[in-house]
Amino acid sequence: MELKGRSFIGSAAVMEAGKTFTAINPATNSPQPPNYYSASVADVDRAAQLATKAFVAYRRKNGEERATFLREIANGIDAIVDALVVRVNQEAGLNEARVRSEAGRTSFQIRMFADLIEDGSWVRATIDHGDINRKPQPKPDLRSMYRPLGPVAVFGASNFPLAYSVAGGDTASAFAAGNPVIVKAHPAHPGTSEMIGDVILAAARATSMPDGVFSLLFDAGTEIGTALVKHPLVRAVGFTGSQRGGRALMDLAAARPAPIPVFAEMGSTNPVFLLPHALAARTEEIAKGMSASVTLGAGQFCTKPGLIFMNSGVDAESFAKNLTARIADSPTQVMLTPGIHSAYMNGAAARGKQTGVAVAAQGKAAAGETGVRGLPTLFSTTGKNILRDHALSEELFGPESVMVNCTGREEMLEIARGLSGHLTATVHGTEEDLREYAELIDILEQKAGRLVFNGFPTGVEVNNAIVHGGPYPATSDGQSTSVGTPAIHRFARPVCYQNFPQSALPDELKEGNPLEIWRLVDGNFMKG
Amino acid sequence: MELKGRSFIGSAAVMEAGKTFTAINPATNSPQPPNYYSASVADVDRAAQLATKAFVAYRRKNGEERATFLREIANGIDAIVDALVVRVNQEAGLNEARVRSEAGRTSFQIRMFADLIEDGSWVRATIDHGDINRKPQPKPDLRSMYRPLGPVAVFGASNFPLAYSVAGGDTASAFAAGNPVIVKAHPAHPGTSEMIGDVILAAARATSMPDGVFSLLFDAGTEIGTALVKHPLVRAVGFTGSQRGGRALMDLAAARPAPIPVFAEMGSTNPVFLLPHALAARTEEIAKGMSASVTLGAGQFCTKPGLIFMNSGVDAESFAKNLTARIADSPTQVMLTPGIHSAYMNGAAARGKQTGVAVAAQGKAAAGETGVRGLPTLFSTTGKNILRDHALSEELFGPESVMVNCTGREEMLEIARGLSGHLTATVHGTEEDLREYAELIDILEQKAGRLVFNGFPTGVEVNNAIVHGGPYPATSDGQSTSVGTPAIHRFARPVCYQNFPQSALPDELKEGNPLEIWRLVDGNFMKG
Repeated sequence: MELKGRSFIGSAAVMEAGKTFTAINPATNSPQPPNYYSASVADVDRAAQLATKAFVAYRRKNGEERATFLREIANGIDAIVDALVVRVNQEAGLNEARVRSEAGRTSFQIRMFADLIEDGSWVRATIDHGDINRKPQPKPDLRSMYRPLGPVAVFGASNFPLAYSVAGGDTASAFAAGNPVIVKAHPAHPGTSEMIGDVILAAARATSMPDGVFSLLFDAGTEIGTALVKHPLVRAVGFTGSQRGGRALMDLAAARPAPIPVFAEMGSTNPVFLLPHALAARTEEIAKGMSASVTLGAGQFCTKPGLIFMNSGVDAESFAKNLTARIADSPTQVMLTPGIHSAYMNGAAARGKQTGVAVAAQGKAAAGETGVRGLPTLFSTTGKNILRDHALSEELFGPESVMVNCTGREEMLEIARGLSGHLTATVHGTEEDLREYAELIDILEQKAGRLVFNGFPTGVEVNNAIVHGGPYPATSDGQSTSVGTPAIHRFARPVCYQNFPQSALPDELKEGNPLEIWRLVDGNFMKG
Repeated sequence: MELKGRSFIGSAAVMEAGKTFTAINPATNSPQPPNYYSASVADVDRAAQLATKAFVAYRRKNGEERATFLREIANGIDAIVDALVVRVNQEAGLNEARVRSEAGRTSFQIRMFADLIEDGSWVRATIDHGDINRKPQPKPDLRSMYRPLGPVAVFGASNFPLAYSVAGGDTASAFAAGNPVIVKAHPAHPGTSEMIGDVILAAARATSMPDGVFSLLFDAGTEIGTALVKHPLVRAVGFTGSQRGGRALMDLAAARPAPIPVFAEMGSTNPVFLLPHALAARTEEIAKGMSASVTLGAGQFCTKPGLIFMNSGVDAESFAKNLTARIADSPTQVMLTPGIHSAYMNGAAARGKQTGVAVAAQGKAAAGETGVRGLPTLFSTTGKNILRDHALSEELFGPESVMVNCTGREEMLEIARGLSGHLTATVHGTEEDLREYAELIDILEQKAGRLVFNGFPTGVEVNNAIVHGGPYPATSDGQSTSVGTPAIHRFARPVCYQNFPQSALPDELKEGNPLEIWRLVDGNFMKG
């Protein structure tokens, strides 16, 4: 397809000319045509109005109809994977294997939500039958289920141009729940965004979804995103990105005359605890896995392990030596954008100069390298420094990690207690370690959304049991997950119907359970 | 028991003297001894520290142990009902029948949460088994469940001295989920608060719960509440009260370095739509029920119907005449506090002077009445005025309602579309009305937490299907309910365990399902 460089309000391209920007090819650090035109604040209003109009019809579509729409999107993405391989590489520097894998993950997620809403049990239908003979007051018949919120604003992520961008997890779960979506494309990959937006618009047409169920807005700055979050017709926000960006949206949403929920996944440092017996028994294996996890995708994952705790001693020294050698042997990698690259390189330089921090290893730059390439870096410090200087625990987005030598169990527990919220926390241990450090697990349960045992935090499964969330500042709402089927509940709310006649009830709540979904009826789970 | 007038930090009474206040007996408008001493900001810190310490042990208590604690509280409340009848009347002007009924509701709610956590299925245990043979990456074993958040601050409500105060729904659900609770007592009923606090402390001792699982702080102003919401160790807030108060807490929580969730139930105007055929067929019955609902408890319920919409015509006139006669015949009632009384009387006076508003009826004051008594008031206006002047739609807390004459279906729908969030929306209609006004139901589903058909919004069932919530400004978080079993999820968050050995997993997630709870295993709901 030919890229047009235009925002879309529903199916209509915005043809007014405004400020333009282009993607930058990070492999060459040069502009990648075509020009993209920034949307205007008036476009935001038009998109929100049209989405609200579309919501009238879209919220009435049943699960099967919405599933058909979602599957059409998934099929459309699958059909253009070859073209995506080219464009994503040009805009984000990701290689073919990664793009194919991420595209597969994207359509898999969309189909998972399609299956979920076709089944229908996600609405948590609950029925408490009435009793007109109850004294002193008759008991009313009450039935509740989850219903969509209304237009959702989704902000594309820089580091997942497919899986957490235009048709990513936020969009898929918002659509699945019955909400129109307005995407603010990430300016780093506008071409990819347009290609995916085109797939969604074609799918909406093919499945007779109302115009305005999807809009796509471009902007290289913050004006459009700000206007979206402040727009009175926008009902919720999905965001994946930096802590600073996410917090800015949280603050905007909280200051609205009518505040709305913001589901911002803002990344974290993902602490790893290497317990004594495991460290002694599996030095080589853990160092190998750690090196791979730290450098995977140039360290540009929100689950990259950025803090590695261990007790000082010969095993820690042996591990440090092993990991140091691996990182020193790691090549540079093209990063997503020049901005991310310079933030990473500047951050790493600053970290290396912090008191009590040593640069244990730096990776290898090859001769004649071009583009914006991240240099793998491994730091070393002590538990005392971590306790003293919170900046050392902050996320550095890139192929970097900090080894922390602790004086022993007590210091490790003290550090754990002082951790802020993280997406993940990882423990390597034997059964004996787990007994000795039971308190550590207890503490980490309060700090992270997912606890990983004898593994590495990168790699996030997409299913029912996953939690990709965690207390602030990992996310804006530690009670939610942005990955997996429960992500759908971020964009829905329960509505209760009291003494409604059968004819006016949604099918999900009718006697006889015509949709054959799981329901909680008079306190019992049943499909009958 | 002798009332001491002291805050409690865990089991220890705060004996430092500070500013004092007393309850006011609204039936006499005179102080009700004893003096209550305001807590200090240092007390807030002590309570938060102790709660955090208590959380270490309390979060490990299993459902059965926490259920025993809750039932001990319920039994303790039941045991002092006679004393409560006296004190609640002195502090809040509620009569014996109301106090007995509310006490019953309070212990019922507590036992409901006890049953819920003893059953254990509320944690939404979810298991996706791993597969080491999956390509290209082995599939990890993932298991998730809901876990408590940490210390919860609960603000007692003025209008439910028992059911939404010290041991009310917020406290019960927070305890049930495994959180310590720090209650800021409502200054209007400190004696009642102390009596209930005493019951909770005795129950904690009797069931060996850690000291600090509960604290009770008094303050006549906003200093202690502000300090509580800002305290870094407080993890969530439960509140029932005014929109202004709730919004203030929301803003404080959102501005924290680490924001926390606020679950504020702030009341609403609870619009009622009387559709043509029902209005014609059941004029008398609807007017009778409406009059009772508007004046119940001196109109001091967050579900009081404050807006009554109908299409102009002979049926509307007949209904207005009937309701007017009933309100004119309604006696004054003692209100909760002098402050609520004066806000109501001033608000009613101001409303009566608004352009296009007529006072249709005022109730009857008897000779020689004493205390702060609310005068039932019925207003009348047009749909055009409601559309023009938003202030007319705002809640007036007291025995008052506004009849709104609309020009027809289209104006009614236009008004419905313009509604803000409400706890409830009510429709009186026949099957024929429902067909003609299907769009109205569709709109109201987006505006309220609970839709009532051919009934009245006052009277909130406590069960699984109830939703006592609704979009802002009815609540701070329209995705939650403050009544019913699902209220427990406000104070919990999902945690995922990846590849954990069986010995380190919570019982809820172990193979073989030792607790025999409902779980979602590999996509299937089962108890096996």
